[in-house]
Amino acid sequence: MPQRDDAAIEVTGFAWVPPFARGHVRDLRVRWALEEIGLDYRTRLISAVERPTSYFGEQPYGQVPYYKEGDVEIFESGAIVLHIAEKDERLLPRDPVGRVRAQTWLISALNSMEPYIMNMVTIDGFCADQEWALLRRPAQVEMMERRLQHLSVALGDKDWLEGRFTVGDLMMVEALRNLSADRLSIPQNLQDYVARGEARPAFQAALAAQLADFVPDEEGVPA
Amino acid sequence: MPQRDDAAIEVTGFAWVPPFARGHVRDLRVRWALEEIGLDYRTRLISAVERPTSYFGEQPYGQVPYYKEGDVEIFESGAIVLHIAEKDERLLPRDPVGRVRAQTWLISALNSMEPYIMNMVTIDGFCADQEWALLRRPAQVEMMERRLQHLSVALGDKDWLEGRFTVGDLMMVEALRNLSADRLSIPQNLQDYVARGEARPAFQAALAAQLADFVPDEEGVPA
Ligand SMILES: N[C@@H](CCC(=O)N[C@@H](CS)C(=O)NCC(=O)O)C(=O)O
Ligand SMILES: N[C@@H](CCC(=O)N[C@@H](CS)C(=O)NCC(=O)O)C(=O)O
Repeated sequence: MPQRDDAAIEVTGFAWVPPFARGHVRDLRVRWALEEIGLDYRTRLISAVERPTSYFGEQPYGQVPYYKEGDVEIFESGAIVLHIAEKDERLLPRDPVGRVRAQTWLISALNSMEPYIMNMVTIDGFCADQEWALLRRPAQVEMMERRLQHLSVALGDKDWLEGRFTVGDLMMVEALRNLSADRLSIPQNLQDYVARGEARPAFQAALAAQLADFVPDEEGVPA
Repeated sequence: MPQRDDAAIEVTGFAWVPPFARGHVRDLRVRWALEEIGLDYRTRLISAVERPTSYFGEQPYGQVPYYKEGDVEIFESGAIVLHIAEKDERLLPRDPVGRVRAQTWLISALNSMEPYIMNMVTIDGFCADQEWALLRRPAQVEMMERRLQHLSVALGDKDWLEGRFTVGDLMMVEALRNLSADRLSIPQNLQDYVARGEARPAFQAALAAQLADFVPDEEGVPA
């Protein structure tokens, strides 16, 4: 596991989140990318409950993840993962066409899928008992399922969106895994795709590392 | 105006959209980036009303813009604009820190601002008369205004997010201009920021080119 106190790369995450959010905090994407190429990192864990005011000077919205590597400081999981990917062709192919296709899928995950996924999570999770959510749900589900259908066609019977695994798959899988096939019709090849991503040793290591970093339950909810 | 029939770069847009959407179709971002660095392009205009089936083989969701340059084919306005920016340091600084900061703001526009902006446009535009939208609006406005407040602090009294204009500003301005200060409290420095972006000759040229490309009204709504 490439977590090391004196590593050059620092990733900021949360010290504690409620159980339902564990394994879904977005520093997971960053840890996953680092694990794929075996880069050491150290973590800085801040309170999700009371965000230090000075932190907004780093991450303008006060969110995690945040990334430091010497004088390079990055917020936005998408930008961080793209930066990490530039270091290694296992994440970002070196040929110009392969490179641009991987970047395209990364941005597609962030801008064409995730906004819909966030709305689904809002409707089925955070606001599930609110009237607007009940009224809005059918249309939102229809839009989400149509998008999934299009993505399913693009994936076809390939293992990864461009044949080989890239940073585009990393981001797409990490976005899709926030959807549940209990509440939504998710094409089988996309379900298999997510399972394939989650089965990667680097994903498993990243997930274990995020979970291990949270303050143990016995210590209670931090102030 | 760098639109030329034999240009190496092809941008796909719509042949016609309803009046309210003109000047807001996302090939504008691509045209703007090309205008900033004086690159010629040609346009391929497809029907927004009846999308050619084969087009889904290019753009998985059937949307515009789409970009071709030799064997490089890109969808996602964000990925296209990032690719164009790589060509010229006027959009993407060459020093590693400046480069990564510009990319960060580009992705922030796409993943931290635009999802909220799209929800505002849905609530105040497409679904304005629906009950769920009325019920949801106050919470959505609060989230949007909080984000704008954070962004306003990050911009401060600078002209551009990192001091000098970059592709990050291009994307942020183009996302923000879909919000209206009539319905929402938008901090003054952000309003000035958007106005500054829209005043750039390259933006003005891109906007004129998008508007000029639509089938004239006299010819009616295409089938
Ligand atoms: N677009 C941002 C979103 C980051 C984000 O949503 N972070 C969540 C944790 S997964 C957070 O910090 N939530 C606390 C909050 O919004 O105040 C990114 O991808 O980095
Ligand atoms: N994330 C995509 C979104 C593209 C998009 O929303 N395009 C709109 C025009 S602005 C479109 O094609 N709408 C028609 C449709 O959704 O079917 C991008 O940035 O390129």
